[in-house]
Amino acid sequence: MADIPETHVLAIASHVTYGYVGNTMAGFVMQCLGCEVSAINTVNFSNHTGYRQFKGRKTSNEEVVELYEGLRQSGLNDFDMMLSGYCPTAAVVAEVGKIAREKKLMAATRPGSFFWVLDPVMGDNGNIYVQEDTVPAYKGLLKDADLILPNQFEAELLSGVKITDEQTLAQAIQVLHQQHHIPHIIITSVRFGDDTSDLAVIGSSAKSDMSPRLFKLSAPALPVFFSGTGDMFAALIVARLREACSKADLLGRPSWQSPDDVGPEELPLATAAGKVLASMHAVLEKTMLAREEVLRRIDDEVRGMDEGEKKRHLRLTKAAEVRVVKNVKDLINPPEVERFTASALDTEEVAQSEPQADELGVVKTGLGDGEDGATHQT
Amino acid sequence: MADIPETHVLAIASHVTYGYVGNTMAGFVMQCLGCEVSAINTVNFSNHTGYRQFKGRKTSNEEVVELYEGLRQSGLNDFDMMLSGYCPTAAVVAEVGKIAREKKLMAATRPGSFFWVLDPVMGDNGNIYVQEDTVPAYKGLLKDADLILPNQFEAELLSGVKITDEQTLAQAIQVLHQQHHIPHIIITSVRFGDDTSDLAVIGSSAKSDMSPRLFKLSAPALPVFFSGTGDMFAALIVARLREACSKADLLGRPSWQSPDDVGPEELPLATAAGKVLASMHAVLEKTMLAREEVLRRIDDEVRGMDEGEKKRHLRLTKAAEVRVVKNVKDLINPPEVERFTASALDTEEVAQSEPQADELGVVKTGLGDGEDGATHQT
Repeated sequence: MADIPETHVLAIASHVTYGYVGNTMAGFVMQCLGCEVSAINTVNFSNHTGYRQFKGRKTSNEEVVELYEGLRQSGLNDFDMMLSGYCPTAAVVAEVGKIAREKKLMAATRPGSFFWVLDPVMGDNGNIYVQEDTVPAYKGLLKDADLILPNQFEAELLSGVKITDEQTLAQAIQVLHQQHHIPHIIITSVRFGDDTSDLAVIGSSAKSDMSPRLFKLSAPALPVFFSGTGDMFAALIVARLREACSKADLLGRPSWQSPDDVGPEELPLATAAGKVLASMHAVLEKTMLAREEVLRRIDDEVRGMDEGEKKRHLRLTKAAEVRVVKNVKDLINPPEVERFTASALDTEEVAQSEPQADELGVVKTGLGDGEDGATHQT
Repeated sequence: MADIPETHVLAIASHVTYGYVGNTMAGFVMQCLGCEVSAINTVNFSNHTGYRQFKGRKTSNEEVVELYEGLRQSGLNDFDMMLSGYCPTAAVVAEVGKIAREKKLMAATRPGSFFWVLDPVMGDNGNIYVQEDTVPAYKGLLKDADLILPNQFEAELLSGVKITDEQTLAQAIQVLHQQHHIPHIIITSVRFGDDTSDLAVIGSSAKSDMSPRLFKLSAPALPVFFSGTGDMFAALIVARLREACSKADLLGRPSWQSPDDVGPEELPLATAAGKVLASMHAVLEKTMLAREEVLRRIDDEVRGMDEGEKKRHLRLTKAAEVRVVKNVKDLINPPEVERFTASALDTEEVAQSEPQADELGVVKTGLGDGEDGATHQT
């Protein structure tokens, strides 16, 4: 178990019957690390959309309101943290924002007593897979978030900065800190150009003047697409950040912000992210090895079958379900954590350039499958 | 982690945002013991009904069908076991039965490859808290179940035998084995008369002629009402029975039945139940101790408050939420398991009496709160 104090997390995200994405992933992972988790499920689907077929229903914003009201009327809403992920509509995004604002208000006299980790699930690799009005809905909420976890594409959507290299990525983070007042940011799955050997994670915890403290971590990229890894990252960072900030005695400070003399690579967010990547790399590598067994046999199995190609896809997608249950020990004790150490990212030029989001080119996006609710982010 | 082979469980029961009952309890507990769990949630409530107020919605039988159909179309329904609990309507009970029959049929050429644990949640202590047509709906399904987990009152409803002592309880089990063809039975929370110091669990795995092999275990009763303990028992018995039957090399036999020369106290079901009670006693005792802290302060806290009595009830109910997350190690390594050893129950007279359910007095039942979805069984 992680060395975290009593922590109760409200988790608002999707639920699938089969496999591990959304709350189905995040709930178990946070519980394994010792968090109490209360889940409001924003969809109830049979499986994630990476299978290319699924059944089930989206939760209405009225039902989300109802469930939270049920908690409130019985004094069951005394959460220390909230992790919000996929929302099927802009109306649900808005309700999540209302819950966060109410909790922030309740916590006003007790700094640090409520911390919101917002995963603004909107799209990936240039495709938006939510309804278009979801993007402005998320932008309106950013000022209340303590930590956001966009992928590279979502960071572009939120900041208005086209990200092509570390320099522009640093600009995007600066916009998010300074114009949207977000204290902590991690951009997951950063990739520039054709280099696919490593996957970078770049983050920052702002100083008191909201200037960035940028750090970078890398993990070897695995040649398989796994669903739910964004949710896995989010769940692990919730527990590990709580742990690191507790150790650094920051839980009583607004947004758990570190004093200005703490360097980027010493930030609790950077330490937490290292443990997260170590756990993830171990579990994903084991998942990949188990999947390879299936891969070796699959062509013989589906040869001559009706819809052989479809069956092959379904079977391999199933084999790529992240094996969290069988590898709990890697979640609790991240192996080889020394391989995943943060380094400071040079920000000198960035800090001087003071970009304005509106001056930067508007990010062009393609509209993807609006139903693609339960698969997101690698 | 329990020493169980790869096990994938379909779990059909209620979901609550706050606290631990139904699938919210059972899913986590089974996952901790190494089972993959796929949950179909029959209700989505804010909290269990023991709080006396809650919000949320029941899942329709159409939605249950839809979710299972979603699994089937993608080859995601290859479950080894099913655990079914609270169903909000007779229509949902019927759908659960259809899923079980389909799985049984698929498993016909591979004995033991699908095992259904049915918790027929209907009522407790003389009160039915489901709609009346749920009782015959459950009766119609019994023949397909491999193990049922009624409490004493539910055993009366299903067998038609009024249970007042060990003798009548043994009769009820005999009816369930012989007339309903259920191979394994455990009656949870057995209490006769005013003796409340111990809580007995009485079970039986039938011989090949469907005659009972009765065993009994006891645990000290705790002076607190906990919700979700029936679901905790069910989840633990799923994992522990799988483990014990794997060890005894029974997983390839129909309904994992033990050879006739195995005595009652040596049955895998009896060994499994011992580990289950050891885990439960440890976790519930720790929950009780944590609750006592709250109890000591509660009267001062609510004194003079509006609706003080209601607030007191809500706060104490919250404090009685079973602390599974913080006590995972007690689930994995049941402490003091030697205190929970099964002994054979003398059945000689029972075996000769051959009762007929219809000749026995019809059990009189009171109709309780039909909404009482998420709280059941101690």
